[in-house]
Amino acid sequence: MPIPINLHPDRLFPADPATRNLARRLYEAVKDLPIVSPHGHTDPQWFADNEPFANATALFITPDHYVFRMLYSQGIKLEELGIPRRANATEGAPVETDTRKIWRAFGAHYHLFRGTPTRMWLDHAFATIFGIDERLTADSADRYFDRINACLAEPAFRPRALFERFNIEVIATTESPLDPLAHHRKIRESGWDGRVVTAYRPDPVADPEFDGFAANVAQFGALAGEDAATWTGYLAAHRHRRAFFKTMGATSTDHGHPTAQTSDLSAAESQRLLDRALAGTITAQEAEMFRGQVLTEMAQMSLDDGLVMQIHPGSFRNHNPLVANRFGRDKGADMPMRTDYVHALKPLLDKFGNERGLTIILFTLDETVYARELAPLSGHYPVLKLGPPWWFHDSPEGMLRFREQATETAGFYNTVGFNDDTRAFLSIPARHDVARRIDCRFLATLVVEHKIGEDEALALAPGLAHDFAKAAYKL
Amino acid sequence: MPIPINLHPDRLFPADPATRNLARRLYEAVKDLPIVSPHGHTDPQWFADNEPFANATALFITPDHYVFRMLYSQGIKLEELGIPRRANATEGAPVETDTRKIWRAFGAHYHLFRGTPTRMWLDHAFATIFGIDERLTADSADRYFDRINACLAEPAFRPRALFERFNIEVIATTESPLDPLAHHRKIRESGWDGRVVTAYRPDPVADPEFDGFAANVAQFGALAGEDAATWTGYLAAHRHRRAFFKTMGATSTDHGHPTAQTSDLSAAESQRLLDRALAGTITAQEAEMFRGQVLTEMAQMSLDDGLVMQIHPGSFRNHNPLVANRFGRDKGADMPMRTDYVHALKPLLDKFGNERGLTIILFTLDETVYARELAPLSGHYPVLKLGPPWWFHDSPEGMLRFREQATETAGFYNTVGFNDDTRAFLSIPARHDVARRIDCRFLATLVVEHKIGEDEALALAPGLAHDFAKAAYKL
Amino acid sequence: MPIPINLHPDRLFPADPATRNLARRLYEAVKDLPIVSPHGHTDPQWFADNEPFANATALFITPDHYVFRMLYSQGIKLEELGIPRRANATEGAPVETDTRKIWRAFGAHYHLFRGTPTRMWLDHAFATIFGIDERLTADSADRYFDRINACLAEPAFRPRALFERFNIEVIATTESPLDPLAHHRKIRESGWDGRVVTAYRPDPVADPEFDGFAANVAQFGALAGEDAATWTGYLAAHRHRRAFFKTMGATSTDHGHPTAQTSDLSAAESQRLLDRALAGTITAQEAEMFRGQVLTEMAQMSLDDGLVMQIHPGSFRNHNPLVANRFGRDKGADMPMRTDYVHALKPLLDKFGNERGLTIILFTLDETVYARELAPLSGHYPVLKLGPPWWFHDSPEGMLRFREQATETAGFYNTVGFNDDTRAFLSIPARHDVARRIDCRFLATLVVEHKIGEDEALALAPGLAHDFAKAAYKL
Repeated sequence: MPIPINLHPDRLFPADPATRNLARRLYEAVKDLPIVSPHGHTDPQWFADNEPFANATALFITPDHYVFRMLYSQGIKLEELGIPRRANATEGAPVETDTRKIWRAFGAHYHLFRGTPTRMWLDHAFATIFGIDERLTADSADRYFDRINACLAEPAFRPRALFERFNIEVIATTESPLDPLAHHRKIRESGWDGRVVTAYRPDPVADPEFDGFAANVAQFGALAGEDAATWTGYLAAHRHRRAFFKTMGATSTDHGHPTAQTSDLSAAESQRLLDRALAGTITAQEAEMFRGQVLTEMAQMSLDDGLVMQIHPGSFRNHNPLVANRFGRDKGADMPMRTDYVHALKPLLDKFGNERGLTIILFTLDETVYARELAPLSGHYPVLKLGPPWWFHDSPEGMLRFREQATETAGFYNTVGFNDDTRAFLSIPARHDVARRIDCRFLATLVVEHKIGEDEALALAPGLAHDFAKAAYKL
Repeated sequence: MPIPINLHPDRLFPADPATRNLARRLYEAVKDLPIVSPHGHTDPQWFADNEPFANATALFITPDHYVFRMLYSQGIKLEELGIPRRANATEGAPVETDTRKIWRAFGAHYHLFRGTPTRMWLDHAFATIFGIDERLTADSADRYFDRINACLAEPAFRPRALFERFNIEVIATTESPLDPLAHHRKIRESGWDGRVVTAYRPDPVADPEFDGFAANVAQFGALAGEDAATWTGYLAAHRHRRAFFKTMGATSTDHGHPTAQTSDLSAAESQRLLDRALAGTITAQEAEMFRGQVLTEMAQMSLDDGLVMQIHPGSFRNHNPLVANRFGRDKGADMPMRTDYVHALKPLLDKFGNERGLTIILFTLDETVYARELAPLSGHYPVLKLGPPWWFHDSPEGMLRFREQATETAGFYNTVGFNDDTRAFLSIPARHDVARRIDCRFLATLVVEHKIGEDEALALAPGLAHDFAKAAYKL
Repeated sequence: MPIPINLHPDRLFPADPATRNLARRLYEAVKDLPIVSPHGHTDPQWFADNEPFANATALFITPDHYVFRMLYSQGIKLEELGIPRRANATEGAPVETDTRKIWRAFGAHYHLFRGTPTRMWLDHAFATIFGIDERLTADSADRYFDRINACLAEPAFRPRALFERFNIEVIATTESPLDPLAHHRKIRESGWDGRVVTAYRPDPVADPEFDGFAANVAQFGALAGEDAATWTGYLAAHRHRRAFFKTMGATSTDHGHPTAQTSDLSAAESQRLLDRALAGTITAQEAEMFRGQVLTEMAQMSLDDGLVMQIHPGSFRNHNPLVANRFGRDKGADMPMRTDYVHALKPLLDKFGNERGLTIILFTLDETVYARELAPLSGHYPVLKLGPPWWFHDSPEGMLRFREQATETAGFYNTVGFNDDTRAFLSIPARHDVARRIDCRFLATLVVEHKIGEDEALALAPGLAHDFAKAAYKL
């Protein structure tokens, strides 16, 4: 008899019967709300071309760094998982191309994910999207592979159909200023009424340490018809591209700097840093100042054009040079760092912190700042809001810690609901479901411990599940 | 039908029935103990003059930075809340003077406080002090305002009557060395037997970066009859003022430095720093050394005169210059910072750490130090004790984290009970009630998980609620 | 009637009945598994000579820094507890030699340990090893002292008998490279089949700031027949001594540096630092680089000889100079510090992070890194594994925080079971019992909240209790 898959209707609710009952009732009220996905990394080409996904392996393993980082940590080579090597990489094992073989290796190691959110997301997708009712194991791997591949060949499993089935009200992708947004244009021109919007992520032209920065800035200026080698032209190019992104639905920008440092430099000093960045002579400290200045300029532009600003700092990117050299970016080798906000944001906040027409959403990979920095900051400054738990912390325990540590000082209304922030399209319903369950659990606990009334929990639950994200991101 | 106010007899107790029952029993044993308030910021003038409080708004909104920081974060201007502008402030909106209108704005936004301790404190005060049984909303705001104001006009709601009704055994206020303590003298001469004592907070003459430091030191010397521009005279002035504070009941000092840094400098070096501080030429780093030296000198004086020393480090004061310039200090714009103790306290501990005749109570705004630094330090050094969760962490979740993270290494007997640390007089019973409930809950969990016996929990509960504070502060 | 001792069969299980029942079932499956103790500080002489332990005080108080640091923090002098003074210490009170008097003082202060793991470990040892059924108090202290001493005189309480009674499958001690391992040799030659292995802890010759570093290195070279004043000879001496340690069963090395800093220096630069270290002219920063270089070299050697590497960073040793001067090292005055891993380990990881033939087990005294650094690092790098909660965090709450904060990113299979890390031999069964209970509790919660199946919890429990440690340490 096959082992049943793990998808109990009470999953993530606490054991105490009274709290569980109330969590269930709250969850009933929000579980079918449409999904607002205000920040993420899905590929707009999926929705533009609406081609079928290739196979189970290409869908669930090769693109998902949560999946292959765990397998890699246990000694499985990335090549064995079919992760493509960079064009110029000369070393390493042969890259596996037999997708069934890769899937079998995955099934044989699925126990490694016990206790992780990846396991919950995957089981949710297997069960609810593909109707699978047995657990993934070495034994069931082939049945999984065949079933998923068979489904993917059907029209109901094409990207747009899944988008509709997932009840997505709106989803934001994330693009570089250098992106022509052709897929977004195609979506718009297709007549399909799924709402896919872009977001403006200027890291390739904002971070002097980004690969190809000088060339990026040159292309950036060309796209905008500005001389981006001058500080004035550089800023004008941003304004131009932001306006273009708005025509493709953008309501937000996003900034993935190593730190939350902001600056308030003169135009002359900014020009000097830009010159050095373009010449490749900028120091690490100057690059930090430059990125910080861009953040402050972006805040000014957001005040002008209304784009909501997101700051996602604190990731040490490409920590593992062997992996970076062989396989490139975003291969599960980014590591969180301790991150300061109270000092780092001050230059920006001194200028714009009291504005009522600007929203800046803060994220962190350093949970120690929830209670110490982010909740106190967002519980005072009108411009600041708290983003949901991010990346390694987008998990049941991580979400509980966020609510437990942030709510007493920031309240609920300085938070902005959930972001799935994912490139794993099929995990989106699962991720929102986890967030809804955990928020309902947290609210139920507040009620059972008589901190708020049940009517208040019922009023808050749809906010956390849907309304707050929609409002904060102006979607 | 009005929505009932939130004041369930089981509030803050955990859902599990066995644990809740035991928490109830423990709470029964401590709920009526008198309040020892060993550290706080109530105004001694209230008890000296015993005049009625002006109105609901002046009592609950205008002076309470917890309240108006949350409203401000959601876009309500401080002027709309009647927060007075500094005399020399020239910009900003008109300051609202219609206290009913301010109260209505508060009622209409009361939902913002869901999940915050402010909500619990306020509901407790509304219900237990003013007998209100409906929730504060836009609809009930007028009824609240009228009821509270009517009460305040009665003798039973004057400060001394409330002091007695709150069953306060002793309360400490906090004053600058420059304060003549006239209100304390008046209380003592009045024949009233409420026990209100002062505490010595020398920041205005200990922190070279404090507004008006040089003038403060000059006044300090004059008050003490010492030449405080010399290091010897400066120290003598402290000794003099400490002795005077003791005549007004002081049993403690308090130090609110940006960090916990202590120093052990020569007299010559201290004189050099004092000179530069008075001349306004001191660097930030030197100011830090100077403040650190004052802490070490205060420890020496405490060893001599028996005053218990409190260190409250880690607040970035006046983070928002616009708010500071328009409205002044203590307007909800102070932010916690990461704080080190293991290195910072070493110079002081090297000199006095092993003394049995000295007590130094440590507080933190950085919860990461509970398990990592404060519990290990206080679980070894005879001079050190752990103060309760402070400010942003004076909350149910904050208190649980404190007990969960500090107890296993520091035990209970290196902690000192509860401090309300508040200027919001009417919140004092609520704050002590929250602390008692959470401590009883924590003890009940220890018993139910068979870590300690029920008799031991019953022995500890009155210590945490009353006795430890009284003993540690020598009250 | 005496107060019963605290040893409930359900201790440490959560209150919720469903979760408790499942925790019990899981615990049933692992409670009698043999103890694998892969890292600790027991004295091999006990097992070599198999002499009786002297008395209750010498067994439970004098050597246990957890015990006397708490008593010291509450004003009891170390001399009153019979802690021996260093030979050259001239100051301090007379050292108490009446072991009964010391035990009485301990009994009278036993309440100080309420809520601490020390209390649980001691009660477990008193009850299960000595059959005591009443609580330790001032009143029962004499009965305790007599009972324990009477037991210790019996053959069944000699070290080897206890080792067998504790069901220890294997225990590792920790020795300096300068140690001739005579006790280990004697154990091996004795014919006793208890498995006691050593571990290689090179701090005395790896840390230029260690007492007597130059003399240690000279002795090290002499033992190995190498000129350890040359970098080549120094490395060869390590290889030689590691090989010798392997003949005495070593499967691991251990490194207790102040930080986790690693280096990747040239041989010439390493020689320069060694020269300065031997000459006593090395700066603090250079000493840090030197220690870091030793770590990287140790990783290379481990890749060659298969010894598993442990890094235990982050302790500020001998924080209290008075205690260090009078009583020496390891007297309860070591304090945890904030510790970085993401930057510190990079030089080593850049060289060896992707090796499949090397295991590095990371420990921390800074819990903030569980979710932020250690879980992300060990969830990616093949060489890295997470050690269990250490020292101040080897406690029920500490263990729960570890599992809650590390599991979602690292999973279970990047962890290595439990280490007791103790010199308190009689606490070993208690410590492993606490770890097994807490892990079963954690697993039960995952099942009850439907994150994993009950069959998966049953598959994991023996891994956490026994198998993972055995495998990770190659025991």
